[in-house]
Amino acid sequence: MAEYKSLSPQQLRRELEALRQQYEAAQKKGLRLDMSRGKPGVTQLALSLGALDAVGSASSLKAEDGTNVCNYGAPLGLYEARRLMGEILELPPEQVIMGGNSSLNLMFDCVSQAYTHGLPGGKGPWCRQETVKFLCPVPGYDRHFAVTGHFGIEMIPVPMTESGPDMDVVEKLVAGDDAVKGIWCVPKYSNPTGYTYSDETVRRFGALSPAAGDFRIYWDNAYAVHHLYATDGKKDTLLNLMEELEKTGREDMAFLFTSTSKITFSGAGIAAVAASKTNIDCLNRRFALQTIGHDKVNQLRHVRFLRDITGIEAHMKRHEALLRPKFELVVRALSRELGPLGIASWTNPRGGYFISFDTLPGCAKRVIALCGKAGVTMTPAGATFPLGQDPEDKNVRIAPTFPDMEELREATDLFCLCVKVASLEKLT
Amino acid sequence: MAEYKSLSPQQLRRELEALRQQYEAAQKKGLRLDMSRGKPGVTQLALSLGALDAVGSASSLKAEDGTNVCNYGAPLGLYEARRLMGEILELPPEQVIMGGNSSLNLMFDCVSQAYTHGLPGGKGPWCRQETVKFLCPVPGYDRHFAVTGHFGIEMIPVPMTESGPDMDVVEKLVAGDDAVKGIWCVPKYSNPTGYTYSDETVRRFGALSPAAGDFRIYWDNAYAVHHLYATDGKKDTLLNLMEELEKTGREDMAFLFTSTSKITFSGAGIAAVAASKTNIDCLNRRFALQTIGHDKVNQLRHVRFLRDITGIEAHMKRHEALLRPKFELVVRALSRELGPLGIASWTNPRGGYFISFDTLPGCAKRVIALCGKAGVTMTPAGATFPLGQDPEDKNVRIAPTFPDMEELREATDLFCLCVKVASLEKLT
Repeated sequence: MAEYKSLSPQQLRRELEALRQQYEAAQKKGLRLDMSRGKPGVTQLALSLGALDAVGSASSLKAEDGTNVCNYGAPLGLYEARRLMGEILELPPEQVIMGGNSSLNLMFDCVSQAYTHGLPGGKGPWCRQETVKFLCPVPGYDRHFAVTGHFGIEMIPVPMTESGPDMDVVEKLVAGDDAVKGIWCVPKYSNPTGYTYSDETVRRFGALSPAAGDFRIYWDNAYAVHHLYATDGKKDTLLNLMEELEKTGREDMAFLFTSTSKITFSGAGIAAVAASKTNIDCLNRRFALQTIGHDKVNQLRHVRFLRDITGIEAHMKRHEALLRPKFELVVRALSRELGPLGIASWTNPRGGYFISFDTLPGCAKRVIALCGKAGVTMTPAGATFPLGQDPEDKNVRIAPTFPDMEELREATDLFCLCVKVASLEKLT
Repeated sequence: MAEYKSLSPQQLRRELEALRQQYEAAQKKGLRLDMSRGKPGVTQLALSLGALDAVGSASSLKAEDGTNVCNYGAPLGLYEARRLMGEILELPPEQVIMGGNSSLNLMFDCVSQAYTHGLPGGKGPWCRQETVKFLCPVPGYDRHFAVTGHFGIEMIPVPMTESGPDMDVVEKLVAGDDAVKGIWCVPKYSNPTGYTYSDETVRRFGALSPAAGDFRIYWDNAYAVHHLYATDGKKDTLLNLMEELEKTGREDMAFLFTSTSKITFSGAGIAAVAASKTNIDCLNRRFALQTIGHDKVNQLRHVRFLRDITGIEAHMKRHEALLRPKFELVVRALSRELGPLGIASWTNPRGGYFISFDTLPGCAKRVIALCGKAGVTMTPAGATFPLGQDPEDKNVRIAPTFPDMEELREATDLFCLCVKVASLEKLT
């Protein structure tokens, strides 16, 4: 099949007619497939079952410093857990505080603390300020946008490029407006593009000169070690943001987050936030009141199971073996089915959990609706933009991790069919 | 020894002199004991070690509804965990949401949500209101006061009686001032008095008529099943607040909290909040953004280990066997050493984690300081009052659970000595 734009109106109509028949046949299969969330598959979860046995009734329940992990104490988390998460973030344990099982909750807490009490360097609580704005690289992570949306924060989309957010735009907005208090970043294998911020991008982040003293980079390094399907055998690398910030005396300008949600268990991992001493002290004033400290037994389980960054890297290799075929399957199907037609583009990342897919303008909602009606649940169109509003209605997030290979093949084939149908509807 | 008030000034001075020598001798022992927090002892933690084995690599990881507990999903918590916590609170699972390992965190989240967004029935976020007030039964729980203090909420002390907060005062303050938005309650085996609210008190809570539509009773039922040292073999009973509220159509007027912090592990238990449908929906609007759901593996561990309320009651019997001797030791020592002197009074509860102790007015700080200098850490004087300010400087919270029996004997003896010294200093 040639590019759709080279076809005559009549040819397009005939093609649409034929594909509609295929779609109707597909609908009758009664599929029930889900590619909506970045959710590990069951075979991936099985890789970490040993963690469940890593602390049992026969184990020592003492942390390195003698803390009994079953009792109160160590509100910042076990030192060895802070060290482990620090290794992922390439930061010393002293700069790391443990959360519960969700780094999202830590991000929420940081924004909430700024909203109710303000942050060091700022002019008080955000709830007392007329307007607070966040920069949101798009397409981006819907749950980030939901947090800032919850606090009534105005979200300004910033275009993502293959080397990270458009830094010309970021620098200008940050320097020119003291209502701009933050930017959401997934710097490595970004959600959903899979792009990793280039060295130059990170250096420019490290040298940002914000108008607001309480501007922070919310650096969600969720996929720091998730080199999952590099078909060229290469790994993306990310400069250490904190080192860059320290070079210019800006170490208070970032909160860094990570978790083991996609290393061990999405439902029962451990999460951490890292920051400068000033910021850590600020957060602790909240955390010390908010909780008696998070689950230390689970922290110990993770330390004993993963050990250190070498153990984590070996473990991620096992995830890679399960995920690479899935991403290859999707990318191959997209290339085969859609490549020649000139109606879509997509990313082909070396890690992370997603493929970002662009339809012709104005087609994404229709594609998702068609998929849904044929039994394949995709992330809602627009989810990758603040307030769910994709101005061009073209971005779709593909999450290939959860279905098994056969389901994934069926879901991807159906997705490609729906993209063709929606594109032809638009073109005819 | 007779009551101190019957002694002549000379006798008092001579007694003080003798006790100071005892105190100096005690100081030389170099004690390092801690009675400051309601912390389970190591033998108590050992009772729950089986919970660590309740979910392992060989276990089924499916919840009753088929949810894989290791993956994302079930953001409100496993149904069976909600049922278990509901049994503790005597409420249906549908009214219960699971938190992480800390009910304090859930209380913080509820207050925080009210502060940033308001609650159903109210006039918007508390952060937009000039004054917000909470009623604080005193003596009470320092961490409650720390949460409301964090949000700049004015705290109004209300006297505790043996049947609960003075309800005449509560009813008047709540009805007369729409800035009064809440009251902190530990209704059963209260922290620190050990008093349980009488049926009449709970009925009066159930019929409160607050001026503020967003007034809530923050019902921290931390010791719901903690019948730990009833020397008379009796258990305190507590009316079901939600049932009382429902009778009068006031079911939106309470948030109820509980946890297993003092059933299984203080560092790795599970916590829950319960409320009316309207309130649950309100909280969920926050929780759905705040987290991907709390640790479901730990929820499953608890369900498999504790099973149901019958299992919990049997388990609490084992705690009782360890704790009763400790409370008996303290109460016996207090009676023997201080009973005849007329310088102190204390509670003798049937459960919970504390004994509330009153010195002569103006002596509590001095007692705690004397204890500290001789190596026994007590809860800071004043901690049981908002902002740490005990107007009469007389209340001390005794937490006998953590030390072993020998340590407890030494610590209690020293405490009694310090009470005598401080009282004589005051009287001479």
